Amino acid sequence: MASRTSKTVTLTKLIPSGLPSKEHFTIVEEDASNLVASDDGDLILQVICMSADPYLRSGCKTGEVPRPMSGFVVGKVIESKNCAWPVDSLMGAALPFTSIQKLNDIVLKKTITWNLTDYVTEENATLGLGVLGMPGATAYGGLIDVLRPDKKKNETLFVSSAAGAVGSMVGQLAKNVFNCTVIGSCGGETKTTLITEKFGFDHSIDYKTVSTSADLAAKIKECSDGIDMYFENVGGMHFEAAMSTLRPHGRIAVCGCISRYNDASGTAPLNTIDISQMIYTFQRVEGFVCMPYLSGAKMNFLKDMSEWHKEMKVGCEQCFYDGIEEWPTAFQALFTGANVGKVCVRLL
Amino acid sequence: MASRTSKTVTLTKLIPSGLPSKEHFTIVEEDASNLVASDDGDLILQVICMSADPYLRSGCKTGEVPRPMSGFVVGKVIESKNCAWPVDSLMGAALPFTSIQKLNDIVLKKTITWNLTDYVTEENATLGLGVLGMPGATAYGGLIDVLRPDKKKNETLFVSSAAGAVGSMVGQLAKNVFNCTVIGSCGGETKTTLITEKFGFDHSIDYKTVSTSADLAAKIKECSDGIDMYFENVGGMHFEAAMSTLRPHGRIAVCGCISRYNDASGTAPLNTIDISQMIYTFQRVEGFVCMPYLSGAKMNFLKDMSEWHKEMKVGCEQCFYDGIEEWPTAFQALFTGANVGKVCVRLL
Repeated sequence: MASRTSKTVTLTKLIPSGLPSKEHFTIVEEDASNLVASDDGDLILQVICMSADPYLRSGCKTGEVPRPMSGFVVGKVIESKNCAWPVDSLMGAALPFTSIQKLNDIVLKKTITWNLTDYVTEENATLGLGVLGMPGATAYGGLIDVLRPDKKKNETLFVSSAAGAVGSMVGQLAKNVFNCTVIGSCGGETKTTLITEKFGFDHSIDYKTVSTSADLAAKIKECSDGIDMYFENVGGMHFEAAMSTLRPHGRIAVCGCISRYNDASGTAPLNTIDISQMIYTFQRVEGFVCMPYLSGAKMNFLKDMSEWHKEMKVGCEQCFYDGIEEWPTAFQALFTGANVGKVCVRLL
Repeated sequence: MASRTSKTVTLTKLIPSGLPSKEHFTIVEEDASNLVASDDGDLILQVICMSADPYLRSGCKTGEVPRPMSGFVVGKVIESKNCAWPVDSLMGAALPFTSIQKLNDIVLKKTITWNLTDYVTEENATLGLGVLGMPGATAYGGLIDVLRPDKKKNETLFVSSAAGAVGSMVGQLAKNVFNCTVIGSCGGETKTTLITEKFGFDHSIDYKTVSTSADLAAKIKECSDGIDMYFENVGGMHFEAAMSTLRPHGRIAVCGCISRYNDASGTAPLNTIDISQMIYTFQRVEGFVCMPYLSGAKMNFLKDMSEWHKEMKVGCEQCFYDGIEEWPTAFQALFTGANVGKVCVRLL
């Protein structure tokens, strides 16, 4: 066995509040020569790319350090005693951010994996972090299973973080597959232009130009007299603006609340809600995460989404950082608004 | 045609705030001799009983007076040129509180009706205001279609206004049809005793002994380490206590918010909600009203419920007031906690 080295993105300093930065992380190198697929079920995964996602922020507030960061990766199986994952399989998974790692039956049972072999190549493996990964499954499950647009009704969808990976795909699916009118909220002119010109949204709102939920609601009303669906990525004033413009039978799918992730004290104001408004209108607010869609436990995410992707009905902007050493920089960029689309760190 | 007189419960004075009372209403008598089923589709309905319900309160705040009150009634068809409703049919409907009235096609299209002929007699027609009326349909739809208890899992249900018509039926159905553990909240010892001893609830909480949502949550925790479902009839601290004890995959069905109905200024504090709590837990909050279940547009309310009623799995306490003149007194009793169960005003 040739000598080889693994590298791991390691949190070395807790981040109770504020922006994550390079000083909180170290890339730890270790000899990986002794990693061998020895027992039945074992496999060695060489990670091709790693994701950087906002939800990781809250985990950095507490716990022991140093510890390895974990998240979504796409990797190639380079050794295998696992019949489900032969050599050269391409695997999406939630795993430690370690460049070469051994997985056994126990690890594979505990983590979420999805088999990308039929859908991507080594060259476009980052699709497995985007359209065919967590953001894709989030957009897919949230829109189709939670919000359930009615194709026949030309419903109106509002989505926050609309230039982000999830938001932009929600808008594209709603528009191109479900015949919706789509309003997106994002910050700054670059992004508002992107979502209308590139992603085909009908309307864009620059949330940085408003400061209250009432103002944001007024902006929504300029686009449409109400919304049928809101895909919630941020919380805060967006939620209240959406509730106040929600039509009868309106639905809100909650899959993110980024406005709270950087909150050190846990004292960021909660949303208020007038539940009496929801009664005669049959309105619904529902939380969800991508897991059942990504794992295939519910619906047919990989098949449907790769088809729509081929038909150019949905795509995902990607923003690449090369080298595992760049992961902390990539992660920080999520919170400064520096990135557009899915942040992928490529290792190969 | 024999001479006859109709009587109508009439709101003569708006009730912007506080308790409704006799001074706000008049019973207006009119000659009804000229009411004849003359055209195709016409029918004359003789009202047997009228309901008094909390939701009527908010309508009394504004609008023109004098005007007739409207709500749920059960009546007998005494003349008919309508093939769907032959003479002697027993009809449940939302109509003006008028003892004898003519209905034509237009009225019948606009209002909700349900055909009780196969399920009740003139003697037990008040069932059509309870188990087989709005409260029954509310309990049925909210529990079965919105909350969706899983029979196999022995789930825990919490319900507020548990001694009321809707709440007590929700608890009985959950317990006797869906194998749930049931916790009810109501005010005072008479009611807490009633729900456990008569309706078979597992636990009762006297909400009058607590003053904050945290205290109420602690009481819930004494009964169970968490709840899977909450049937919301009241709003306020109950909603927040339920959210804070809601388990993963927990659901809240919102069909009432009585804590806001007597609010003159519309300034009663809204609920707060931490929507980020709902994401990883797949929690859901959904509003609904009984209409689609009562009308038969969704599911099989009359058939299912009358069967469960015959099997003694669900019943509804009734509280009778005799004579249309008693309607204002019956209505007031809803807001003073004087009544137990469904308030029915009998006319015959």
